[in-house]
Amino acid sequence: MGARFEAYGWHVQSLPNGHDLFSVEDALNQARACADQPALIICRTHIGYGSPEQDTAKVHGEPFKEEHYKATRTHFGFPPDQPFHIPKEAQGHFRETAARGTRLEADWRGRLAAYAKEYPELAARYQLVMKGDLPADWDAHIPEFTPEKDGAMATRDCSSKVLNGLAESLRGYLVGGSADLAPSTKTYMTGHGDVGFHDFAGDNIHFGVCEHAMGAGVNGLALHGGLISYCATFLQFFNYMSPTVRLAALMKQRAIFVYTHDSIGLGEDGPTHQPVEHLAWLRAMPNVLTLRPADGNETAWAWRLALTRRDGPTVLCFSRQKLPTVDRKQHASAENVAKGAYVLIDCQGEPELILISGGGELCFALEAHKQLSAEGLRVRLVSFPSWGLFEAQPQAYKDSVLPPQVKARLGIEAASPQGWDRYLGPVSEANFIGMWGFGASAPYEVLAKHFGFTVENVVAKAKALAGK
Amino acid sequence: MGARFEAYGWHVQSLPNGHDLFSVEDALNQARACADQPALIICRTHIGYGSPEQDTAKVHGEPFKEEHYKATRTHFGFPPDQPFHIPKEAQGHFRETAARGTRLEADWRGRLAAYAKEYPELAARYQLVMKGDLPADWDAHIPEFTPEKDGAMATRDCSSKVLNGLAESLRGYLVGGSADLAPSTKTYMTGHGDVGFHDFAGDNIHFGVCEHAMGAGVNGLALHGGLISYCATFLQFFNYMSPTVRLAALMKQRAIFVYTHDSIGLGEDGPTHQPVEHLAWLRAMPNVLTLRPADGNETAWAWRLALTRRDGPTVLCFSRQKLPTVDRKQHASAENVAKGAYVLIDCQGEPELILISGGGELCFALEAHKQLSAEGLRVRLVSFPSWGLFEAQPQAYKDSVLPPQVKARLGIEAASPQGWDRYLGPVSEANFIGMWGFGASAPYEVLAKHFGFTVENVVAKAKALAGK
Repeated sequence: MGARFEAYGWHVQSLPNGHDLFSVEDALNQARACADQPALIICRTHIGYGSPEQDTAKVHGEPFKEEHYKATRTHFGFPPDQPFHIPKEAQGHFRETAARGTRLEADWRGRLAAYAKEYPELAARYQLVMKGDLPADWDAHIPEFTPEKDGAMATRDCSSKVLNGLAESLRGYLVGGSADLAPSTKTYMTGHGDVGFHDFAGDNIHFGVCEHAMGAGVNGLALHGGLISYCATFLQFFNYMSPTVRLAALMKQRAIFVYTHDSIGLGEDGPTHQPVEHLAWLRAMPNVLTLRPADGNETAWAWRLALTRRDGPTVLCFSRQKLPTVDRKQHASAENVAKGAYVLIDCQGEPELILISGGGELCFALEAHKQLSAEGLRVRLVSFPSWGLFEAQPQAYKDSVLPPQVKARLGIEAASPQGWDRYLGPVSEANFIGMWGFGASAPYEVLAKHFGFTVENVVAKAKALAGK
Repeated sequence: MGARFEAYGWHVQSLPNGHDLFSVEDALNQARACADQPALIICRTHIGYGSPEQDTAKVHGEPFKEEHYKATRTHFGFPPDQPFHIPKEAQGHFRETAARGTRLEADWRGRLAAYAKEYPELAARYQLVMKGDLPADWDAHIPEFTPEKDGAMATRDCSSKVLNGLAESLRGYLVGGSADLAPSTKTYMTGHGDVGFHDFAGDNIHFGVCEHAMGAGVNGLALHGGLISYCATFLQFFNYMSPTVRLAALMKQRAIFVYTHDSIGLGEDGPTHQPVEHLAWLRAMPNVLTLRPADGNETAWAWRLALTRRDGPTVLCFSRQKLPTVDRKQHASAENVAKGAYVLIDCQGEPELILISGGGELCFALEAHKQLSAEGLRVRLVSFPSWGLFEAQPQAYKDSVLPPQVKARLGIEAASPQGWDRYLGPVSEANFIGMWGFGASAPYEVLAKHFGFTVENVVAKAKALAGK
C-alpha cells in the first residue's frame, strides 16, 4: 500500500507501532512540513487495542459487554467502573487548546476587520461567498434561446452557453470540471483558466477519469464553503459515482452534477453507454433534485434552480443529440421548469388526451401535438423536466396540469417505464413509449425509429388512446 | 502506473514504443513465462497512429473522413482506395493459425474421449458443468423451514443454510464469496475450503473489500463456464458494483449477487448503510431478477430460482433482522415465489382490502391480517418477493392475485415508494408504509416504530382504507 501511494507521488510514512503516540505526533509534524505532496501515514495497529477482544473481528462487529469495558479501562489505568473518565493531564491540555483557539479566532477577526476597512468590496464579496449567497448580478449573463437564433441545439451545448454566462458573473466562485470529458460534456468555462497542481488560479478543474473522486471532491468543496462547484460526465458513468451523489443528498449539500449523453440519443456507443434505469434510480434517491430539460430555455432554468438550491444536490441531465428550441413566444414560459411539469401547449376546452414528455423526447410530442390538433383532436402537451419538483407542488396545481378525469394519457421518455404509472395509470406499450430493455448501437436516427421514438408512433398511439 | 502495479506484486514491463510489434511479441512471451504473477505490459503509443489526426483527441471522438482513411492507408503502404485489404503475409499467417487450431482441437477431443473411457463419471460431470446444467440431486439438501423448528430467523441466516445445502450437492461447481463480509452476509460454505493464491482447491473465494472487482470476477467465471458463482456484500454497497450487475444483465449471464442488510432493519449503522432507493433501482434495471424473500422457505425458493436461471443475473436481498417463519401448513406454499407475488392468506369471499408486502416487512402485515380478520374484515394478504417475476405472469394470474375491482390496497415495504403506484394506485401515506427519505441510526425496534413499521400502524391504515 505504501509503495502504491509512493507511485502516485505521495509522501509516505510507515509506523511500525501506531499506538505509540509520540511517533504519530512526529509523523504528523513531518507530513505538515511537506508542503508540495499529499501525505499518507500508515499506522500498524491492533484492532480493539487494550481490550480483552484485541486482535479479533468481534470488536468491529459486536458491542462490548460490561466486563470488556471494565478490563479495557483497567488496562489503560482508568477507574474500571466509571463510564467517562478524563485524566487531569488531558483536561489541562484541552483547556489550553480552547484558550489558544479563542486567541487565534480574535486575531483572525481583527485582521478581517482591517481587511474590510481597506478593501470593502473584496471583503463584502468574501462574506457573501462564505455564506453561500449569490451576488445580485448572478444571472445577468444567462442567454435566452429562440428558434430563429438557435435553431436545434443539443442541451449539452445549451448548457455550455448557460454555464459560461453564469461563470461571467461568478468568477472565482463557481468552479468545476469533468472526468476527462470537457469536450463531450461541454462544461469548460472558457477564459477562466485551470486549477493547477500548486495553485487555484483558475476555475476549471481537471478531475481525470476518476468519477468517484470527482464527486467526493465536489462534495468537499461544498462542505468547505466559499465555492459553488459542479462536475460532469456521461449519465451512464453515474454508476461509478453514485455513492457521492447519495452522500451529497444525505449531507444536504449544494453540489451540482452534470450528466450528458442521457439516453439512447447518444447513438453509436451502444448499450454499455446508454442509460435506461438511471432516471428511475435518481428519482428514487431521496433529496436529489433531478432535471432533464428539453431545450435551451429549460436548460437555463435548470441551471438557475441548481444554483439557487441550498439544501441538497442537483442533477442536470443533458442530451448529446440536437433538439429544436421551443418557441416561447407561442408556448408557455420555461420559467415553469421550477414547477417540475407544466402545460406547454393546451387545447380549447377539456383535453381528450394528454401527451406527457420531457428532455430529448419532447420534440416528438411537439410535432405530434401539431398533427393531432390539425386533425381536430383536443390534445394537451405537458413538458415534464422534474418529477421531484412536480411532486412538491400543491395538489391543486398538480390537478390543473394533469386533471384526474382525463384518463387518456401518453408518456414518452427514452427510459425505464418504472414510476410512470403514477402519471399514466397502469403503464403498458399502449400508453408509454419508452425503453423496455437495454438500448443498442446505431446512429441515433436509426435507434429512435427502432425503439418507437417517432412522430408517427406518437400520433398512432395517441389516436388509439383517444379512441380515434 | 507501473510502480503502482509493481507495488501490487504484478510483473510489469514498460515498452517505450508500443507500435514496435517485435517488442510487443517479446513482452507477451515474457509475460507468459511468468507463471506466478499477473502481468502488465505498458505500451507507450500514439493515438490514431499513422493517420493525419495522430496525437489528437479527434481520432477518439469523431469519425474519420474519407481523406483520413486514404492518408492512413497510404501511410501503411495499403492501396488507398480499398476499404478492406489483407496483406498476403497476414493471410498466410491466419491460414496457418486456423490449421493449427483444427489440429489442436482434434488432439484435445481425442484426449477427452480417452479420459471419458477411463473416468466415465468424472467426464459426464465435466460435460454437465461445462454445459451449465445442474446434476439431478442439486436441490436434495435444501432444508425446509418450520415455525416449530426454526422460529424467527434473519433471512441471511436462512440463506446460509440453503447455500450450504446447495454446496453439498454442487461441490467444486458452486463457488463464491464476499467482499470481506462472510461473517455478516453468512455466505461461507462450511467445509468447502478456500481458493488460494496459487490453487483452486476450495470453493470459497475471499474477494477482499473490492466490490467492483468482485462483481467483475463473478461475471468472468460465468462467461468462462464450468462454474456457477455468487458474491455477497451489503445491499448499500451495491452502489460500488452496480456496473458489474448491469453488465451481467446485458451479457445475459448466470451470476448471483447476494445483498444482505437490505433495509433500515440493519439498525445502528445508520443511513449511510441503509438502502432506500436500491430496490427501485434494481427493479428498473433490465434483465435483473431481484428477489426479496420474507422467510426461510421463500429464501430457499429464491436460491432455487437463482440457480436455475440461465439468461441473466439474480439479485437476492436478505435481512439482518430476525423474521418469523411463516407456517406453510396453514398458509400458501413458498413455491409461489416463482410467480413473483401470491396470495399468502385469503379471506372468505371478495376481499375488502389487500395488504401487499414482502421481505422484512411481511411480518407486520401477517400480524395485522390476524387482527383485522378477528375484527371481521375481509382481508387478503399478498406476499410480493419479486416484481419482475410477477410482471412476467399472464394477466389472468395477475388479476387473480390483485383483482382490479378491489381498490383498497395497502403496501408495506421499507424502501422508496417509486413504482408502487402500479399496484396500489396513486401512492400516498394513506396507502403505503415505506421510506419517504433516508433512514436513521438506532436499534431496529426504535427505527421500525419511528418509520411506521408496526402492526398497529398497518391495522390503523388498513381500517382507514377499508372505511372502518
